[in-house]
Amino acid sequence: MGHETLQVGECYEYPLIIKKLLTTALTYATDQEIVYRDRFRCSYQQLNERIHRLAGGLGRLGIQAGDTVAVFDYDSNRYLESFFAIPMMGAVMQMVNWRLSANQLEYTINHAEARLIIVNSDFLPLLAQIRERLTWVEKIVVIIENEQVAESSLEICCDYEQLLADSADHYNFPDLDEHTKATTFYTTGTTGDPKGVHFSHRQLVLHTLSLALALGSYETIGRFRSDDVYMPLTPMFHVHAWGLPYVATMLATKQVYPGKYEPEMLLRLIVTEGVTASHCVPTILQMLVSSPAARQVDLSRWKVIIGGAKLSTGLAAAAQQLGIVVYTGYGMSETCPVISLSTPKTSMLGSLDDDALLNLVVKTGLPIPLVEFEVVDLDGQPLPHDGQTVGEIVFRAPWLTRDYFKSPAKTRDLWRDGWLHSGDVGHIDAAGYLQVTDRIKDVIKTGGEWISSLDLENCISRHPAVLEAAAIGVPDDKWGERPLLIVTLKPGQEEAVDSKGLQEFMADAAKQGLIPRYAVPDKILVVAELPKTSVGKLNKRMMRQEFG
Amino acid sequence: MGHETLQVGECYEYPLIIKKLLTTALTYATDQEIVYRDRFRCSYQQLNERIHRLAGGLGRLGIQAGDTVAVFDYDSNRYLESFFAIPMMGAVMQMVNWRLSANQLEYTINHAEARLIIVNSDFLPLLAQIRERLTWVEKIVVIIENEQVAESSLEICCDYEQLLADSADHYNFPDLDEHTKATTFYTTGTTGDPKGVHFSHRQLVLHTLSLALALGSYETIGRFRSDDVYMPLTPMFHVHAWGLPYVATMLATKQVYPGKYEPEMLLRLIVTEGVTASHCVPTILQMLVSSPAARQVDLSRWKVIIGGAKLSTGLAAAAQQLGIVVYTGYGMSETCPVISLSTPKTSMLGSLDDDALLNLVVKTGLPIPLVEFEVVDLDGQPLPHDGQTVGEIVFRAPWLTRDYFKSPAKTRDLWRDGWLHSGDVGHIDAAGYLQVTDRIKDVIKTGGEWISSLDLENCISRHPAVLEAAAIGVPDDKWGERPLLIVTLKPGQEEAVDSKGLQEFMADAAKQGLIPRYAVPDKILVVAELPKTSVGKLNKRMMRQEFG
Repeated sequence: MGHETLQVGECYEYPLIIKKLLTTALTYATDQEIVYRDRFRCSYQQLNERIHRLAGGLGRLGIQAGDTVAVFDYDSNRYLESFFAIPMMGAVMQMVNWRLSANQLEYTINHAEARLIIVNSDFLPLLAQIRERLTWVEKIVVIIENEQVAESSLEICCDYEQLLADSADHYNFPDLDEHTKATTFYTTGTTGDPKGVHFSHRQLVLHTLSLALALGSYETIGRFRSDDVYMPLTPMFHVHAWGLPYVATMLATKQVYPGKYEPEMLLRLIVTEGVTASHCVPTILQMLVSSPAARQVDLSRWKVIIGGAKLSTGLAAAAQQLGIVVYTGYGMSETCPVISLSTPKTSMLGSLDDDALLNLVVKTGLPIPLVEFEVVDLDGQPLPHDGQTVGEIVFRAPWLTRDYFKSPAKTRDLWRDGWLHSGDVGHIDAAGYLQVTDRIKDVIKTGGEWISSLDLENCISRHPAVLEAAAIGVPDDKWGERPLLIVTLKPGQEEAVDSKGLQEFMADAAKQGLIPRYAVPDKILVVAELPKTSVGKLNKRMMRQEFG
Repeated sequence: MGHETLQVGECYEYPLIIKKLLTTALTYATDQEIVYRDRFRCSYQQLNERIHRLAGGLGRLGIQAGDTVAVFDYDSNRYLESFFAIPMMGAVMQMVNWRLSANQLEYTINHAEARLIIVNSDFLPLLAQIRERLTWVEKIVVIIENEQVAESSLEICCDYEQLLADSADHYNFPDLDEHTKATTFYTTGTTGDPKGVHFSHRQLVLHTLSLALALGSYETIGRFRSDDVYMPLTPMFHVHAWGLPYVATMLATKQVYPGKYEPEMLLRLIVTEGVTASHCVPTILQMLVSSPAARQVDLSRWKVIIGGAKLSTGLAAAAQQLGIVVYTGYGMSETCPVISLSTPKTSMLGSLDDDALLNLVVKTGLPIPLVEFEVVDLDGQPLPHDGQTVGEIVFRAPWLTRDYFKSPAKTRDLWRDGWLHSGDVGHIDAAGYLQVTDRIKDVIKTGGEWISSLDLENCISRHPAVLEAAAIGVPDDKWGERPLLIVTLKPGQEEAVDSKGLQEFMADAAKQGLIPRYAVPDKILVVAELPKTSVGKLNKRMMRQEFG
């Protein structure tokens, strides 16, 4: 209770630190539940106790303020515990993307200087491959996912549950400086080494407050409030599962963590636990809505934010037919991540018909509170908000990474003129909605015109036989580049359409004015599968190598 | 757009400043309305322009960063414009309580070192009384409330609307340090000089975010969200109208400002403008619910936060009978002001019957996000949360005044052990709800026991004939003090009950265990009117002098 360093008459300088979010959560709920698959459930009161025990355990293992602890786990209550306990000690939580290659894993863990790893037993074989090359790691704590743990050559210091059991239920979390680094992870482009981004306590607290406001206090579609039941469907290693676990905890909602993503388990949890709010990449939504099991289940209470890649109107319509409320969330690893949500403004509610709503939710969206964005030309000058003029998208917000860790040269590309440069291009309309049209490097430059690869992909996605599509620019002697569309077809549709039929579809779209005439691809390839990156995004670099 | 002082690679240190709340508002609504009585309405876009024009005008009159501008007005769009324009320039907005005595007005304006006054023409006679003694004031800008302005001996520099008309619609608001002082006003106790409290941009932004979250993202009763229509019924000079104008603006709600409080105009605005959310002291609610006009009007969409004094269960029940959702908000001048709201937790919804809900909404409430409170003993040690053990209430939050302006001695009483000491006593129950039972100085000490004056007042308020009540301690040779109740009766009830009948009512309450037996007053006085302070609170100091 006492704060001995303060003199009589001296005010308490309240820091914006993660500890305060947890205090708020416990005010609003102690009995509310945290669920992990069909294996574990605990109350917020018990979550709090486990957070204290985890910090106590890590402290006994030598973790101090400033140390980095890497976490390798599925979406779980343990991950949530780490989201709080590690930063609250003053240490840094590194979220490890276990889909990376062994070389990338080695690079990121060494670059972050992680001293301890908390790892799910399922990932022990992966870790064993690189253990000898991890120069900073001193100790490994294992989470036993299945009762029989695979034999491992790794030296394990202890079991996660035992570590908690052996610790006191109270840890004296300090009042940190709000600028203390809290979390870090690595973003992998298609070229070069992964880049380390990091976020402070202040940044995470402000991101949490603003995201909660955007989702709760503005009346629109798809709200997320304290009576919702939250289940992430974006891995927690991926930019703090978009920051929603912090929001859900602060709001004291019921939280459901699904572990390894298995469609049947996901659908079962949605039903049995009453999940109402999730977020995922289009691929996961596609997988769920096209699963036959989805038709057996009432999904009409489910609200899903889609991000990580463009939500097509086709997929949005399919989800809406199942009663699911879907809309777009936009952000990047560098932005904590949420920048915008594509929900209607309060004033639009009631005046949008189904089509207008569909066209709105696939936009990139309106900035959430405290976010500012612009599209700028090559000189950094803002372009008109006319819904057409395309430029690079730049941001300001209280939660943008200050720099790439130990990478001043890359940071110079990121921060220019006091704005974070996204590397995305797009336009802003008169109502303030942003539309990303492409990555700067994916824009197809043909005969002096820019063609948005996303426009082409969205256009072809309306064809009933098309499952996924990617547009790339291929070198052309006359035009510089010409667009090439590469598509996969829905199961059973292989006979329904061919490349020529798809090309006619695009030519028709040009006749209707949906795309410019020069954007109609000269060629459309139908393939069995599109190359993807480790986080499930289209790997256009690989496509350009293969098909360019 | 450019931010010339930042080098390539240097991130933008996003400050928590009031300008950013306005940017957010304009993102979500430009056409939404701001209404002043039946006299003026403008859009958010126009509000923004008027804010820029006001700053430009004040700049031409010589106002610079760090200067204080005093505002004397009714609740109006001009006040809202001042809430933004003055702090956004880096100047300090002083909210002047025009109910103060001439001597107190003189003291507070001089103490704050205000250089310019914006004054409603209705208050010119009041200002004329003290003008010569205002040592810092250089210029006076008048708001012409009625077409014919009273002749005034005051030297007026210009008319508010003319000042705006003569200014450019764009002012280059700087990016301030978030700790810059934004607002100030004075709190008057019943003794001593008024004390100056002040709040920084950071404090106001965080108060706005947290209050909006508490009112929007937690599912409970009486929510305030972007589709609400806001009308303050607490003067804007009173702790920023509880901070709600900032919340309403950030949420881009419709806002209605009623000017001078006249019951008929208030009810008319509620109906014609569709007001759904307000806040006021119990006296104003009492005035409205007992007004015959209230029975002609549908108030079932109206949500009202009650603060400033205890909401009695009797008044809450009367409001509920009209369909009004009422609950308690708690805070002080020193706390920006909101500390707590007495809404049910999400988990309680559906399980509370009418009586339980009534008993809950009259509590002091749960802390809003980021607020911490405790009740402590005389050594500053926290007391158990058992709903009974009474101690002094202490706070931590990111928005508590750092000190009393130029009053280090008074500040030493305020901040001790790193907690703000409220001067209120009360208890906290196991669910975390605070109940203020008294001001420390109003506790009635009898025979070694403490009797809460509020408990006695609440108890007698359940008597159907009682309008208002005050309990004080009067000196007693045997017991130290004995409780005295002073009550007013509802119109027409003068014959229905007398002092003896009221005493029997209290004795019955003691038999039922509602109050201790030693708390039954030996005497109950029925009077025509209770003495009040300038902000409408019971003036117990005056009662102790008169009746003690």
